[in-house]
Amino acid sequence: MIEDKNQEKTGLDQLGEFGLIKHLTKNFTLQHSSTLKGIGDDAAVLDFKDKKAVISTDLLIEGVHFDLSYMPLKHLGYKSVMVNLSDIYAMNATATQITVSIAVSNRFPLEALEEFYSGVALACEIYKVDLVGGDTTSSTKGMLVSVTAIGEAKEGEIAYRSGAKPNDLLVVSGDLGGAYCGLQVLEREKEVFKVNPNNQPDLSPYTYIVERQLKPEARRDIKGLLEMLEVLPTSMIDISDGLSSEILHLCDKSEVGCNLFEDKIPLDPTVISACEEFKMDSTLVALSGGEDYELLFTIDQKDFPKIKGNPHLTVVGHMTDKSEGVHLISRSNTKIPITAQGWNSFS
Amino acid sequence: MIEDKNQEKTGLDQLGEFGLIKHLTKNFTLQHSSTLKGIGDDAAVLDFKDKKAVISTDLLIEGVHFDLSYMPLKHLGYKSVMVNLSDIYAMNATATQITVSIAVSNRFPLEALEEFYSGVALACEIYKVDLVGGDTTSSTKGMLVSVTAIGEAKEGEIAYRSGAKPNDLLVVSGDLGGAYCGLQVLEREKEVFKVNPNNQPDLSPYTYIVERQLKPEARRDIKGLLEMLEVLPTSMIDISDGLSSEILHLCDKSEVGCNLFEDKIPLDPTVISACEEFKMDSTLVALSGGEDYELLFTIDQKDFPKIKGNPHLTVVGHMTDKSEGVHLISRSNTKIPITAQGWNSFS
Repeated sequence: MIEDKNQEKTGLDQLGEFGLIKHLTKNFTLQHSSTLKGIGDDAAVLDFKDKKAVISTDLLIEGVHFDLSYMPLKHLGYKSVMVNLSDIYAMNATATQITVSIAVSNRFPLEALEEFYSGVALACEIYKVDLVGGDTTSSTKGMLVSVTAIGEAKEGEIAYRSGAKPNDLLVVSGDLGGAYCGLQVLEREKEVFKVNPNNQPDLSPYTYIVERQLKPEARRDIKGLLEMLEVLPTSMIDISDGLSSEILHLCDKSEVGCNLFEDKIPLDPTVISACEEFKMDSTLVALSGGEDYELLFTIDQKDFPKIKGNPHLTVVGHMTDKSEGVHLISRSNTKIPITAQGWNSFS
Repeated sequence: MIEDKNQEKTGLDQLGEFGLIKHLTKNFTLQHSSTLKGIGDDAAVLDFKDKKAVISTDLLIEGVHFDLSYMPLKHLGYKSVMVNLSDIYAMNATATQITVSIAVSNRFPLEALEEFYSGVALACEIYKVDLVGGDTTSSTKGMLVSVTAIGEAKEGEIAYRSGAKPNDLLVVSGDLGGAYCGLQVLEREKEVFKVNPNNQPDLSPYTYIVERQLKPEARRDIKGLLEMLEVLPTSMIDISDGLSSEILHLCDKSEVGCNLFEDKIPLDPTVISACEEFKMDSTLVALSGGEDYELLFTIDQKDFPKIKGNPHLTVVGHMTDKSEGVHLISRSNTKIPITAQGWNSFS
C-alpha cells in the first residue's frame, strides 16, 4: 500500500475558536435529564433537584503528564476523561457531566484535535456522561488539557476520605501496578525506536499493562456493585498516585492508622512478569506506581461476608487507632512505615 | 532604601503537590450553604436543592492571554476569576463556587503562586464565591490557568443567548473599549521599558483604561439591578471578545437580526482620548476590542421606561427580523454589515 504523505491537514486558524468548538462538539448528544443546557451559551445549566452535586477538575500537560510520542491523541482524550471520572466515582457518586478545555500550539492540525475529541466522545458514550462545555485556545508550546467533571449522589451515599474508623477493612478494586509497568514498556520502546525507527516492537505480551497506561478505565461499576452487595463504604479515594499515597490521605483525613498486608496486594500476572523483566519490586510498583485509577475504600468489619470472594474486590488491610501509625506488614511479617509522598510533578 | 536582592524564594519541589495545594488554599473560607464540601477530597460536594446549577470554564495561557511582563500575578489571579464569573452572570445567575487549576514551570517560586492566589482570594471575597477545588501541577513552559465557575439560578430567571425576539431592545452595561485601550498603553510602555529600563512611566492619565485591562470587574450587580427594576432580560451574553462578536452570537442563537447604533455605543472619555492618541477608531475598538466583561442583553420594548436614564445601562440598538441581517447604523446613517468574528487565538 502506498501511503499518501500529502494528506490535507486543516489549519486551526481557518476555523476560528467558535467554529472549532462547534466542529469538534457537533456529534456529542446529551444523555442526562439533569443537563438542561450543554455547550453553546456562556455556561451550561444543570438541574440536580434533591440530589447533591459533586465536582472535580484536573489539568494535564504535555511533557509532564503525557508523551504524545507513544500516546495516541484518541487515547489521550479518553484518558483525560477517565482521570476525572475516577475522582467522581471516588466520592461514591455518579458522573453526569464534564467540561473539556484544550490548548494546542500551531503544530496541531484540526485532524489531531478531532482524534482527541473522538476519544472524549467514546468516553462520554461508554461512561454515560454529557460534555457540557469547555474552552479551546492556542498555546505557545505543546498541548494541555483541563477537564472538570460533575456528578451527583444522594446525601447519605457520598463517601468522603474522612469516614474511616479503626477496625474498618481496607478494600481495593481490581489490581495494581499495571499502569506503571505499561509506562516502562512504552519508555523502553521509545528508546529502541530512537535507535532504529524501522524496528517493529512486539507488544503483545504486554497488552494488559500497556492498555492500563494508555487506556485506563475508571471504576464506574463499583458504586452499583456495592449497592447490590448492600455495603456502604465508610471512606473512599481513587488510586491515581499510588497505593501508599492514597492510604496516607485516608489516614490523614480520617485520623486513623492502617496495617496494609503485602501478601494481599492484588497483582496481575503480567505485572509480576514485567517487574521481573524490568528488575522492579512489584510491591513498590503497586505502592508508588500510580495511574491505576482503581478505588480504595474502607468498610465496616460486619460487611466482610458480603464482599468476601468477590473477584472485583480485595481486602488488603485494616484501619487501626491513629497512634499505631501507617504500616506495610511484609511477607516476612516485618512492620515497615509507609511514608511515600506520591508523585510530585515539581521534583 | 536598599533592596534586598537575595530574598529567600521557596522552590515548589520542597512542598510537593499536596503540600502546595494545602498551603495555597489554607486561608480560603467557605461562604455558601450550598458548598457541602470544598477542597480536600476527590471532588467538591455542592447542594443546589431546588435551584438550577450553571457551570462555565476558561483556560488562560501565558503568552496568549496574558503577559507577565506587565500583568502582576495578583491581578492575574483576580482577572482569571472575573473572566469566569462574567460567564455565570451572563446567564443572569449568581456565581457560587469556583475551581482554579494552575500549571507553572520551575522558574516560579512559591511566592509567585501566593501572589496569584491572593488575587483569587480577593476575587472570592468581593464576589462572594467559594473556592472548592483545583489542580496544581508543573508545566514545561510558562504559566497557565484553568478556572471553572458554578452558579445557581431559579429556572425562570436564566437568560440564554437564544431568547431575543425581533423589536427587543439591545442593552449594554457600563462602557466599552477600555480594556483594549489599556492594553495599547501597556504594550507601548513595555517597548519603552525595553529601550530604557530606568524610565518611570506616568500612567496616571490612563488609570481607568489600564485598570479595565489589568483588573476588570465582572457585572455581578446587573442581576440585582434588573430584579429591582422588574426587568427580565430575554437573552444575555458577556462581552469578552468585543461587541460585534457578541451581537452575532445573540443573533445566531436567537435567529434574529439587529440594528446597532454607532452614536449610542457608551464610551468613557478616557477611551475617546486614548483612541485619538493611538490613532484608533473608537467605534472599532468597542466593536472588536474585547475583554470589557460588560453584559449585553435584550429586553422587551415595554420595559424601556424601567431602564431609561439608568446610569449603568445603555440601549444601543434593537433586534429585527432575521432576514434584515445584522448592521451597524453609523453616525452618518449608513448601514454597515457586522461581520467581525471576534478574537481568534489561532490566527
